Amino acid sequence: MPTGYRHSQNDVVYEEDQYELTEDGRIPIPYRRAPKYQDGNTIDWLHEEGLERERNHALRSQAGVRGILLPALESVRMWFIVIVTGIGIGIAGAWLDVLVKWLGDLREGRCSYGFFYNSNACCTGLDAGEICQEWQSWGDYFNVHSILGHSLLQAAIYVVLSIAFAGSAALLVVTYAPHAFHTGIPEIKAILGGYVFDAFLTPWTLLVKALVLALAVASGLSLGKEGPLVHVACCMAHFLLRLFKEFRNNEAQKRRVLAAAAAAGVSVAFGSPLGGVLFGLEELDTFANESDVMWRGFVASAIAAVSLQWVNPFGTAKLVLFQVTFVSDRWRAFELIPWVTLGVIGGVLGALLIRLNVEIALYRRNSILGEWPILEVISVSAVTAAVSYLIVFARVQTSELVANLFQECDPTKGDYHGLCNPTATTQNVFLLCLTAILKVVLTAWTFGMMVPAGIFLPTIGIGACIGRAMGLIMQSLYRAYPTAWIFLSCPPDPSVRCISPGFYAVIGASAMLGGVTRMTISLVVILFELTGALSHVLPIMICVMTSKWVGDYMGKDGIYSVWIAMRRYPWLPPVDYRDKGETAANIMKPLSQVVVIEDGVTTVAELKALLARYQYHGFPIIDKHTEFVGYATRQELISVLDLLQLDDSDHDQGKICTFSQNRMRVPAEERIDLSSALEDSIIQLRKEVSQELVVNMFQKLNLRQILFTHAGKLTGLVTKRDVVDLLTSHFPHAAALSQHPHHSRQP
Amino acid sequence: MPTGYRHSQNDVVYEEDQYELTEDGRIPIPYRRAPKYQDGNTIDWLHEEGLERERNHALRSQAGVRGILLPALESVRMWFIVIVTGIGIGIAGAWLDVLVKWLGDLREGRCSYGFFYNSNACCTGLDAGEICQEWQSWGDYFNVHSILGHSLLQAAIYVVLSIAFAGSAALLVVTYAPHAFHTGIPEIKAILGGYVFDAFLTPWTLLVKALVLALAVASGLSLGKEGPLVHVACCMAHFLLRLFKEFRNNEAQKRRVLAAAAAAGVSVAFGSPLGGVLFGLEELDTFANESDVMWRGFVASAIAAVSLQWVNPFGTAKLVLFQVTFVSDRWRAFELIPWVTLGVIGGVLGALLIRLNVEIALYRRNSILGEWPILEVISVSAVTAAVSYLIVFARVQTSELVANLFQECDPTKGDYHGLCNPTATTQNVFLLCLTAILKVVLTAWTFGMMVPAGIFLPTIGIGACIGRAMGLIMQSLYRAYPTAWIFLSCPPDPSVRCISPGFYAVIGASAMLGGVTRMTISLVVILFELTGALSHVLPIMICVMTSKWVGDYMGKDGIYSVWIAMRRYPWLPPVDYRDKGETAANIMKPLSQVVVIEDGVTTVAELKALLARYQYHGFPIIDKHTEFVGYATRQELISVLDLLQLDDSDHDQGKICTFSQNRMRVPAEERIDLSSALEDSIIQLRKEVSQELVVNMFQKLNLRQILFTHAGKLTGLVTKRDVVDLLTSHFPHAAALSQHPHHSRQP
Repeated sequence: MPTGYRHSQNDVVYEEDQYELTEDGRIPIPYRRAPKYQDGNTIDWLHEEGLERERNHALRSQAGVRGILLPALESVRMWFIVIVTGIGIGIAGAWLDVLVKWLGDLREGRCSYGFFYNSNACCTGLDAGEICQEWQSWGDYFNVHSILGHSLLQAAIYVVLSIAFAGSAALLVVTYAPHAFHTGIPEIKAILGGYVFDAFLTPWTLLVKALVLALAVASGLSLGKEGPLVHVACCMAHFLLRLFKEFRNNEAQKRRVLAAAAAAGVSVAFGSPLGGVLFGLEELDTFANESDVMWRGFVASAIAAVSLQWVNPFGTAKLVLFQVTFVSDRWRAFELIPWVTLGVIGGVLGALLIRLNVEIALYRRNSILGEWPILEVISVSAVTAAVSYLIVFARVQTSELVANLFQECDPTKGDYHGLCNPTATTQNVFLLCLTAILKVVLTAWTFGMMVPAGIFLPTIGIGACIGRAMGLIMQSLYRAYPTAWIFLSCPPDPSVRCISPGFYAVIGASAMLGGVTRMTISLVVILFELTGALSHVLPIMICVMTSKWVGDYMGKDGIYSVWIAMRRYPWLPPVDYRDKGETAANIMKPLSQVVVIEDGVTTVAELKALLARYQYHGFPIIDKHTEFVGYATRQELISVLDLLQLDDSDHDQGKICTFSQNRMRVPAEERIDLSSALEDSIIQLRKEVSQELVVNMFQKLNLRQILFTHAGKLTGLVTKRDVVDLLTSHFPHAAALSQHPHHSRQP
Repeated sequence: MPTGYRHSQNDVVYEEDQYELTEDGRIPIPYRRAPKYQDGNTIDWLHEEGLERERNHALRSQAGVRGILLPALESVRMWFIVIVTGIGIGIAGAWLDVLVKWLGDLREGRCSYGFFYNSNACCTGLDAGEICQEWQSWGDYFNVHSILGHSLLQAAIYVVLSIAFAGSAALLVVTYAPHAFHTGIPEIKAILGGYVFDAFLTPWTLLVKALVLALAVASGLSLGKEGPLVHVACCMAHFLLRLFKEFRNNEAQKRRVLAAAAAAGVSVAFGSPLGGVLFGLEELDTFANESDVMWRGFVASAIAAVSLQWVNPFGTAKLVLFQVTFVSDRWRAFELIPWVTLGVIGGVLGALLIRLNVEIALYRRNSILGEWPILEVISVSAVTAAVSYLIVFARVQTSELVANLFQECDPTKGDYHGLCNPTATTQNVFLLCLTAILKVVLTAWTFGMMVPAGIFLPTIGIGACIGRAMGLIMQSLYRAYPTAWIFLSCPPDPSVRCISPGFYAVIGASAMLGGVTRMTISLVVILFELTGALSHVLPIMICVMTSKWVGDYMGKDGIYSVWIAMRRYPWLPPVDYRDKGETAANIMKPLSQVVVIEDGVTTVAELKALLARYQYHGFPIIDKHTEFVGYATRQELISVLDLLQLDDSDHDQGKICTFSQNRMRVPAEERIDLSSALEDSIIQLRKEVSQELVVNMFQKLNLRQILFTHAGKLTGLVTKRDVVDLLTSHFPHAAALSQHPHHSRQP
């Protein structure tokens, strides 16, 4: 029988995990309806929904009070998980902020009255203008008075601590939780789409990732905490889900709760509860048409944000991370020119960053570099720390840099590294561009190393640098030619401010994010909630639009899609797929390549041999004339066979398996009836339907397979993997980083 | 043959619209692939998508430059429509505002130096504190000096003009465009879901609705302009769509563009570009899984908002309609108690408003009231004007009232009708509650009369009154007991402000909107963009959550769903439907009740008779043994028959119709091959699948029918109408207001 049918990874095993055929060829598996999928599988949503429906029905039909209480209890458990996850991730996010701030400050100095205070906590209670004496730089602490010695000591401790943080982070990840590396968003997207990857969500991964994330961020590597926080939130929810049987046994329900957790993660990462819901809606594509799931995401997001605000790590009691203060709420039409330009730059630079990141990831996989992950992290962090220390804007935490770049110049608040000095514009623009370029290269390298690494914050940093540079250029142009026609709508007196470079930085950040992630609406909402820049919604929207257009022109996929394709996760992007005239026959596995069971022909012994030989998820059943009878999953066949308690006699083993009315052709004593193993939820199409309809059905119904029949005869089948391969076929490096051995490319 | 198959309204006619069988039984219809659906039909998305795909393929496969240019031109046309609609609705919205303001002010007075100035334009250029002499009340204008006479004249002109505006609005609607009444959102939802209702989108409706809307709003009736503006935007897009053949002939593509227009409409109505996109996403449920459509909505929204801002009707250059200024960005935990209470009140009052509105609508339909629509509008507007004139908060336009209720008390800006007078709290609370109750009753009556009427603004008004009242109560409690434990987090000095009653009004509005519309995320976003209250996102979210929970408990549907159900539009709500154990067999029309064509049995004459007799959308084809062969739409059968150019001889008319390989059984000269009429995109299921899977497939794939087979044999079919009826079965007044005669209930 042909083996072309590709789905060997999608096998289902029972809770005993592994089994061997017993000597007599019997399959030693007890009757269990709920299978445990192995990592690397794709769940069968229709089957899971069917199980859930049966379970609900059974619960509700219980007599008396139990029939009312038990379903209510289920609902209570679900909300318990959603709410506790929200609270948990809110608190975790807050304490992570505190830890990062403290570790980051430690690289520059210490608090004289307590090692455990960060620079802000150390200097609280001072009046405006008073200089903080309590926070000592390492040079002061070690009493080094020569300027050169002081600087060298500072730089040395900065670099050494950075390396120590990054190195220990990598060591922990490599040793204890290899899945804790990277951002986690591609995996979460795949998991929410039906991929089974329980190793990714273990409590151990949760613990390591949360701890290591603080080290990685504090080390000054070019990475953010946003994506990993989503991963941490999902780990928390997964841990809670395992407490309750109804979720442990239903992968579809599990995913619905995980989606809410992911939204809560985004909510905490950006202090953006609405952005969290929209991220779930747009990027994770999980809430489509399921208002209940969206609703849970909404609640989880809100609760997570409340918890974060309640812990209030920095005493500001604000969710808005980078408060933007504009000189005026008005913006002028001519500013659209630099803003659209920023959109174009963001689109181009974003696409470049993605391409660079892919190339480095491929190089890492295919060279000796991949064998020394800790060394790689240490080297990159050494380079990052050394180079960053030299460039004033790169030395601080990216979040601090972004906060300052978003800020307008305000004489009363002091000048951030001379950024507001009108005579130093050229120098500032040069430094900002240098920082941006440096960060592009470092980010492309860092995103994919063996440390938890989010791409959001570095991208915002790059964009903010470019945007601020553009703002400074515009401002100096205005100062030089205040009466030029382009500045007619500005006040003619150049000492009155007309251009707000801080807002240009926000626009730059939007453009860069648009180019890298290709998100649209959720991005705009996150940026609002991040900056409070509500009055400037339109420029941000226009800029994100431009940047997405330009980026899409240079390469179709955002960074997450690219990583999903490289790791070959079975995830269907929610794109509008249009075929070029192909029909389903183009991706269909024809009948001759499909392993089938013949109704009224196959004997019990043959069926058992077939089940033992092929680990496929299920088998179509046809009769002698290739008429389609039905589809049965491997597990159901095994269960039913087991229930029938056949003995090993030749008589029993030689019985004919029947699934339909064809059984009448076989004498009653020579057959067994397996019709109860047939799946109810089987979708049939004709192979003449357009390929785009097939793709569309897989996208919208979360199917695992579609069977093709013509006039009652089976003609072939298409599985999710076929559709995923079709949709990633335009990407040259698809499956380049796949983890499962049978995913890897041919040598 | 049985006639139980319900779909008589879903017939398809050709562009000639009506036809009769010719004397010889021939069907006089030319060969046309693209059918024109009649109003009241539901489009067949799969079929439309198939046509679109063929057309695209044909375009791209054209030789040379044409193969590149033509598809590009199509894309240009689509963007042209999206952009022009955006600009058009932006400008229309702005001028509508101007018109409403002028007409509204006219009820109270006139500008001494020009009849065409509204009160604001009349009084511009004054210094702060200067009293505007140019704006004359009617009493001053007619030189009435006695106070009583002055008041009476003012009241009389106010009431008379209100009645004149409302009456002429109703007259215009009833005479020229009956579809211009009501909000339009339920119809837009149905149309976007596939309902054909071209009469609803005519240029004439556009013109009348846009003009009449201004009159209706200015008349002071309890209605808003938001929903109708969405309708106007869709009319604009529909007008533009008719210019291009590719959209005229494809109902699916048409709907994708209309969705963008609807988003632009919301964007202009609220000055909320993001809210527009989210409204499309959540309430219209059209962008699900179609990133292209969402993207168009995003662009249309942004462009519409830019146009609105560019026209800048009130010289503020701001999109934020009701700027909220908070005393502090902080809020305190104890405030959650009044806010959640407001959420509960909003949920209850919202559900009550819906129920009241339904009862009044039923009463209107079933009593003599329905025959006197203009008189009803005149009476209600007279009552509204008379009662509103007596209550100080109800006298002004609702938008002005809301703007003032959202405002914090600021001694420098003057006091709005004594709202900030701390000694008049009891009186204010009483007046606000009275206004809210009055508005609930008036809104429930007005929403459904023969004038364009949005529900959003009156709902916001009611909520703002209640919220402000709650805020005043809390404030006076705080003033009376500043040291009570509940106010511990406030400053102990009661002269320092702790409670912001203006923000309570915002919360109240959110709660009320949540209760009436049952929207969540888009509502929160619209409220942000409406008020600029970004720092208070969390309380708004919590309040909307509470109100939706409470509202859902009291009645499952929001106001739009209720109207859709009452008018029996074939619209599938995006709810998570869960069955109680039923299978598809429960809603399936069994084979015995379905009109079928028998492959290899039916003759040409029989087929023609069947096509003439049954106006169904299509017919399943089975062979002698009820084996399922395929499905053919009525139009395809007619087309193919026509192409074959059979003569009227007994020989030709007696030929056997064949659709499959069964044809071999019939001699070649006695048969005709109709297999080209078979639809490719036919979905088959088994009748044992759960009812929830069937509903889910209809919801997500926008299907028109599903066929059920078992082991190759046809067992029945389910159509969209069956699913819609199933989903509205919980609502007692379903179809109570349906327009089509065959929709109405049995007498």
